[in-house]
Amino acid sequence: MSEAALPESLLARLRRAARDTPESGIVEVMDYGRRQNGVMGLWAGEGDLATPAFITEAAAGALAAGETFYTWQRGIPELRDALARYHTRVYGRDFSAEEFFVTGSGMQAIQITLAMTAGEGDDVIIPTPAWPNAAAAAGITGARPVLVPMNFGNQGWTLDLDRLAAAVSPRTRALVVVSPSNPTGWSASRDDLTALLAIARRHGFWIIADETYARFWYADGPRAPSFYDVMAADDRVLFINTFSKNWAMTGWRMGWIAAHPALGQKIENLIQYSTSGVAQFMQRAGVVALDRGDDFIAYQVARARRSRDVACDVLARSGRCRFAVPGGAFYLLFAVEGEPDTRRLAFRLIDEAAIGLAPGSAFGPGGEAFLRLCFARDPEQVATAAERIVAVIGRR
Amino acid sequence: MSEAALPESLLARLRRAARDTPESGIVEVMDYGRRQNGVMGLWAGEGDLATPAFITEAAAGALAAGETFYTWQRGIPELRDALARYHTRVYGRDFSAEEFFVTGSGMQAIQITLAMTAGEGDDVIIPTPAWPNAAAAAGITGARPVLVPMNFGNQGWTLDLDRLAAAVSPRTRALVVVSPSNPTGWSASRDDLTALLAIARRHGFWIIADETYARFWYADGPRAPSFYDVMAADDRVLFINTFSKNWAMTGWRMGWIAAHPALGQKIENLIQYSTSGVAQFMQRAGVVALDRGDDFIAYQVARARRSRDVACDVLARSGRCRFAVPGGAFYLLFAVEGEPDTRRLAFRLIDEAAIGLAPGSAFGPGGEAFLRLCFARDPEQVATAAERIVAVIGRR
Repeated sequence: MSEAALPESLLARLRRAARDTPESGIVEVMDYGRRQNGVMGLWAGEGDLATPAFITEAAAGALAAGETFYTWQRGIPELRDALARYHTRVYGRDFSAEEFFVTGSGMQAIQITLAMTAGEGDDVIIPTPAWPNAAAAAGITGARPVLVPMNFGNQGWTLDLDRLAAAVSPRTRALVVVSPSNPTGWSASRDDLTALLAIARRHGFWIIADETYARFWYADGPRAPSFYDVMAADDRVLFINTFSKNWAMTGWRMGWIAAHPALGQKIENLIQYSTSGVAQFMQRAGVVALDRGDDFIAYQVARARRSRDVACDVLARSGRCRFAVPGGAFYLLFAVEGEPDTRRLAFRLIDEAAIGLAPGSAFGPGGEAFLRLCFARDPEQVATAAERIVAVIGRR
Repeated sequence: MSEAALPESLLARLRRAARDTPESGIVEVMDYGRRQNGVMGLWAGEGDLATPAFITEAAAGALAAGETFYTWQRGIPELRDALARYHTRVYGRDFSAEEFFVTGSGMQAIQITLAMTAGEGDDVIIPTPAWPNAAAAAGITGARPVLVPMNFGNQGWTLDLDRLAAAVSPRTRALVVVSPSNPTGWSASRDDLTALLAIARRHGFWIIADETYARFWYADGPRAPSFYDVMAADDRVLFINTFSKNWAMTGWRMGWIAAHPALGQKIENLIQYSTSGVAQFMQRAGVVALDRGDDFIAYQVARARRSRDVACDVLARSGRCRFAVPGGAFYLLFAVEGEPDTRRLAFRLIDEAAIGLAPGSAFGPGGEAFLRLCFARDPEQVATAAERIVAVIGRR
């Protein structure tokens, strides 16, 4: 077979929702940049640290011990217990293992929570700029992603609750709230969360709460505000999360859903019929990460804070960039004066600065004018990257 | 939260297709049996051998080398090259890496190929008895699984092509063909494959060809007949496969799709928006399995053949069992005289024989009267298991 053989006739026969799936605007740039040598990639949502040895060794040990068979679809009991311990520690109240479901990535947690809530003919509301995968995954179910742009102004990024409420229709089945936000760094206040919950309660739709970046939090306390702080047990809130960021495990593809135990059998079924569970030897590593990973998280967050400050400082001094200092997550979303086509600019920065950034056009309405820089890496490298960017975009 | 808190109000708000997902009739029995000590589980589609050390060591080495970052969504080039080499060797013609897409399990390969072909309002035809997950996954997309029972008689299991053709409607978008079959052991002949392809061509629907068990083949040659033997390059055939069986990697959750390269970007998008790829350190193990695993496959198949013969012999001598000797795969599907409720019998065999089997009721129309025994394990253990089963069901 050659790549050129009759592609149109085959493509034309695909289901429309599959044919319409967009290529990720982030991956497009990464695939371009990875073919070149020496590009420092700040395009993806991952840092420069490999998974710590105390975590990888748990997986290697389980592999050597022959833990290579099928296992519990919801996750091994030891990992679900560890998730309950971790949440009890971080959120300051009791959690039960019965609330947790291990998934093959945070992305799969999104896919499954969308399958639980929305399909053909339904609407899913997503504030933007947003990591594009939730909207794309909603589209694959047949649902319509309803994108509600946030505001960027002197207050930084803000979510207009009236505009969000106006986007609700009788077809609305879910609202995806990513806080702290990828890519803006915006984080919902406790008041924001209360207000969003009130809208969801009034209209009877689900909240899919992506709290992946809760620990990457640069204000007071160990984490960002959470729906756990404001909800009742029977509220329709589904939490999605991942091992990727807190424990530098992006490549592992392991995450979790937290939900009311009454939903457990249905979540298990959806896991069964999509990937049928997560490798047990990987789950052993997850237990160790949750139980012994607090110091590593603290180290990563302190480092990301220094890198954030360096990146903001260098770009601000260029006089050509506009951005809000992110209060959470590990991205700096910045606009460059006189550069509206950020996709083209992202390719140019690969070619001319050997720096890989994600174009804001990948993040939906409101993101077009921006570039996303991931600062979860060594502060000196981030300084070098920011300086190389400034050298290309020029100084005023 | 307690498990009992207000479950109905939450369940009632789930999307109907999610609420209707069936609990796997296999997992139900496994979850019951795993809570008891000393049960020999022949319920799942896996053997008793852990993944060989030459494969696990490749993963452990990659982990230690820090291969824990995001990677190519379609799979690393080295693994796609290895898949092309493997197929070229086994199918006797040239394959290109561009035809292969690594997935997070064979199950995910099914999910993605279904998402490519069918959704709300569409039909997917599935001959039964069949592993239930394809029908369940089709249901989650909103499509309707159309189950076409095969015949069991003096010729063993046969697929009635007229009955299958009669099930085709204007809504038919795909036909799932599992050959060799789980659970029946039926394998499509070259003529069967040609006839199925002709029906698909005539009506313009896709064939999803699950050739997972191609190597577990007890007649002549190194593999079962394949759609590769009868198709043209531009036929609408999507292949799904897995590392699970050939290389004893069930717990890894790694598989692949083989398809025309023209579909590559769309398949990559569907991977991106479901699990975003497979761990690179696992893919390194996949390369080693494909390139250096032929002897292990030969060992497993020879052993499964002996175990098949032992199981058939013991059950036949009981005078109470009916079955067709399976020509492929590694399951013996047998009926027990006077035992129509095989779900109940499966629970009884756990309690009284400490043997775990899968009830035929889990496999759809035509399977109800049967039990599935996986014989991919040590022949002596299979003999013991068969004797313990016979002791419970009694002799004539």
